[in-house]
Amino acid sequence: MNGADSLCDTLLANGVDVCFANPGTSEMHFVAALDRKPQMRCILGLFEGVVTGAADGYARMADKPAATLLHLGPGLANGLANLHNARRANTPMVNVVGEHASYHIQHDAPLTSDIESLARPMSDWVHRIQSADDVSSAAAAAIEVAKTEPGGIATLILPADAAWQDASPSIQRARSVEPSAIDEAALSRVREALRNGRKTVILLSGKALRAGALDIAGRIAAKTGAKLMAQQSNSRIERGAGRVAIERVPFAVDAALKALEGTEQLILVGARTPVAFFAYPGKPGVLVPEQCDVIKLADPGNDLRLALQQLADAVGATSATPAMVAERGGIELPTGALDASAIIQAIGALCPENAIICDEAVSSGRDSFKWTWNAAPHDFLQITGGAIGIGIPLAAGAAVACPDRKVILMQADGSGMYTPQGLWTHAREQLDVITVIFANRSYAILHNELKMMGAGTPGRNARRMLDLDSPPIDWVHMAQAAGVEAARAADTRTFTDLLRTALSRKGPFLIEAII
Amino acid sequence: MNGADSLCDTLLANGVDVCFANPGTSEMHFVAALDRKPQMRCILGLFEGVVTGAADGYARMADKPAATLLHLGPGLANGLANLHNARRANTPMVNVVGEHASYHIQHDAPLTSDIESLARPMSDWVHRIQSADDVSSAAAAAIEVAKTEPGGIATLILPADAAWQDASPSIQRARSVEPSAIDEAALSRVREALRNGRKTVILLSGKALRAGALDIAGRIAAKTGAKLMAQQSNSRIERGAGRVAIERVPFAVDAALKALEGTEQLILVGARTPVAFFAYPGKPGVLVPEQCDVIKLADPGNDLRLALQQLADAVGATSATPAMVAERGGIELPTGALDASAIIQAIGALCPENAIICDEAVSSGRDSFKWTWNAAPHDFLQITGGAIGIGIPLAAGAAVACPDRKVILMQADGSGMYTPQGLWTHAREQLDVITVIFANRSYAILHNELKMMGAGTPGRNARRMLDLDSPPIDWVHMAQAAGVEAARAADTRTFTDLLRTALSRKGPFLIEAII
Repeated sequence: MNGADSLCDTLLANGVDVCFANPGTSEMHFVAALDRKPQMRCILGLFEGVVTGAADGYARMADKPAATLLHLGPGLANGLANLHNARRANTPMVNVVGEHASYHIQHDAPLTSDIESLARPMSDWVHRIQSADDVSSAAAAAIEVAKTEPGGIATLILPADAAWQDASPSIQRARSVEPSAIDEAALSRVREALRNGRKTVILLSGKALRAGALDIAGRIAAKTGAKLMAQQSNSRIERGAGRVAIERVPFAVDAALKALEGTEQLILVGARTPVAFFAYPGKPGVLVPEQCDVIKLADPGNDLRLALQQLADAVGATSATPAMVAERGGIELPTGALDASAIIQAIGALCPENAIICDEAVSSGRDSFKWTWNAAPHDFLQITGGAIGIGIPLAAGAAVACPDRKVILMQADGSGMYTPQGLWTHAREQLDVITVIFANRSYAILHNELKMMGAGTPGRNARRMLDLDSPPIDWVHMAQAAGVEAARAADTRTFTDLLRTALSRKGPFLIEAII
Repeated sequence: MNGADSLCDTLLANGVDVCFANPGTSEMHFVAALDRKPQMRCILGLFEGVVTGAADGYARMADKPAATLLHLGPGLANGLANLHNARRANTPMVNVVGEHASYHIQHDAPLTSDIESLARPMSDWVHRIQSADDVSSAAAAAIEVAKTEPGGIATLILPADAAWQDASPSIQRARSVEPSAIDEAALSRVREALRNGRKTVILLSGKALRAGALDIAGRIAAKTGAKLMAQQSNSRIERGAGRVAIERVPFAVDAALKALEGTEQLILVGARTPVAFFAYPGKPGVLVPEQCDVIKLADPGNDLRLALQQLADAVGATSATPAMVAERGGIELPTGALDASAIIQAIGALCPENAIICDEAVSSGRDSFKWTWNAAPHDFLQITGGAIGIGIPLAAGAAVACPDRKVILMQADGSGMYTPQGLWTHAREQLDVITVIFANRSYAILHNELKMMGAGTPGRNARRMLDLDSPPIDWVHMAQAAGVEAARAADTRTFTDLLRTALSRKGPFLIEAII
């Protein structure tokens, strides 16, 4: 057994059995080792942003890490933007970055680079393997980092010689670290706060947004009169009919200020104090009112459901009827012109039970919560770090994790162009993903941001950088290039018909919706 | 005038008048400033790898830097792989990376990351602007780094508040740093070596591979019997009929060892001692024979043409007739099956005078030198850092720099899928680029590397990671998706006809050659 086998066996022994990969020469021994392990499912992405984004989507739905296989510094670099999103989502992930043989680095061959420097900003843990005998314990340590709540990005640098040298056959198990309970002081502070009659928002994120935890939060809200809100962006929300509905803190600064206006105390449950996505001249960075008390119940690494249960017990809410449970609303199919709201409304109306909705519709997706809150019960996955290009990969990974669930991807066109290669993975793996392109042919968000910055009306140079209409991107051809069946809709009726058809069958499909 | 205006004016005052861009919110004031400067040509890439790769191609042909505009850490990260190539090519480039307003960073908003850590591995110089008044001097310093021979990657981090605050109207000029001359000792060492009768290779790279410098090198070779060779990969070679022909050190270790076998002394002119691209078990890392003396005439930062002229004077070669001048060979059009060699032969035969040939054909391009050495005079641009995905952007940048020259891109399919977004820039800017896709539907190089590593015959998992045939990528649809006209050739005659047609007109065209 060589180091590569040891790595592969350690991953499998710890339940990591999916590897999203884009290998190169320095990873050939690991590829050969994977080849000897049919239990490992290897999924190729034709660009590393697809690899890391898919690993993120997989882990959000599987609640366990996938491995990624990346080629040297540049391969890692290509995957960093989606690693950034994954880190912000607290996604568990084990990255294997192939490196030159240790004795070759001195030669500064063309592909040599400082992998640690590249990895650190988007990793919670970075480790360079020293020898083949170091592989299994290093991999186990990586898996432990990844799996420890709330989840972490562990990046292992694997020199080629450590992969090809003989390794000890001893395979290490990752220590299992239980999520920690909250401390008594935090619990009693929050309990007291909920009795003081002040206007309260309980801000949830992470696993506090799973249906079970939300149900408990809904009871607390019912009992105490506190309002529930979710962070602006979150890894995964279980929502829809029969579940506790929750608003998000809006993206836009003014809207967020308005939503939180008058809040006298904010209780954090795995969430962070809301801040502006960007600074704007003359606007605040922190979005809660100045006099508002921020009280932390639980960190993302705590057992959030348990924390909510303890709080419910403390305030006597356990047997309350949850507030804000969404009833199946019989969402109407849209009529009128095809626009972003019509698309989302159609998705809300037709979304099947247990679907996974992925949202990278960016500015077009602002209404997505409004039109889907009482759709059939579904999971809702968002871009968490603002690094666009996650939608197509995220949907791929979610579909790999949940082959029996329909994935619906709401995809902005500008962001979609960051990782269109992911469509090929949809086709190759015959993933059950419907990709809906919101084709507004513009970086619409930037037009708005230019205005928000007070930077004036766009002229030629600005328009050359913000508009995608010349030439328009033909997403139907793009999908077909990657082997995904596709069709275009320019009116609401056609869109609804296409969506219905796509929902009636399995496998990848793309709808370009011209809005 | 604000900081963004100051930056824009400083770039223009120093002759930097092309900006490849993919902006985001934090760069909106810079976008607004660019909008006030119609002298600046702003070119949008729909992904940052396109932006940095195009800036590389532009600078290689324009012999001056372009600016890039990138959005925060993730935007920079997306551009890093091609920055890596550019740094290895000693390309001059000024990157402007937008950053949050300085006072906003403390909030760790979703897009916050450690930009310096990401930038350093692929930059020669990194600087964070402190205030609007710092902008012009910082930009001038960046331009100086970029322009100092052999060229450098300068990365400027521009906080949004430094862009929007009032700035001093004083615009700084970059100091002009002349390339240094070689020292006398190096010159006399090499002069002596060329007289000792030992078997000598003169290894050239950088600007020693421009036609004028090569002509001088050809005279030295004729006079001294030394053999000329070029580094394995180089930023730009001026070659073809009427110019001194030069072989490259082969990529494959065994072939490189054979090419350098028996060499007793190696003289470096802007080149580095050849090393293996990767380490292979049991093979050497340094590719020159153990007993070979390596003697440096000139560093990449020296004036390489002057160095060669001084050497020619020293060995009395100035009036010699250059060795190895390529005569226009009347390259035959290929017959027989369509394969990589036939494609390259057709390009060699039909290549118009003064064309720019970009090569990212990877394993399919191994014969590209053999079949084009005596084609019409042309420039030859290569991938320099091994980070695939440069071809389509590189060709775009070269075409922007040289609008009156035909660009022919030899593009492998696997690598092409890294930055297919660049085709949209070909269409948008109506660039005169013919993209030839070598569609072997495989990471062919990796199949070979797996063999070279002794890693055995690929099974299912390995094939799932090395083959791109299921589904095949349809490059004609891909091009059409981006607004580029395209056609497919599956036989030599069709390919030759399509190439001839594409050469007869201006504007972007893509040929998918099935091999």
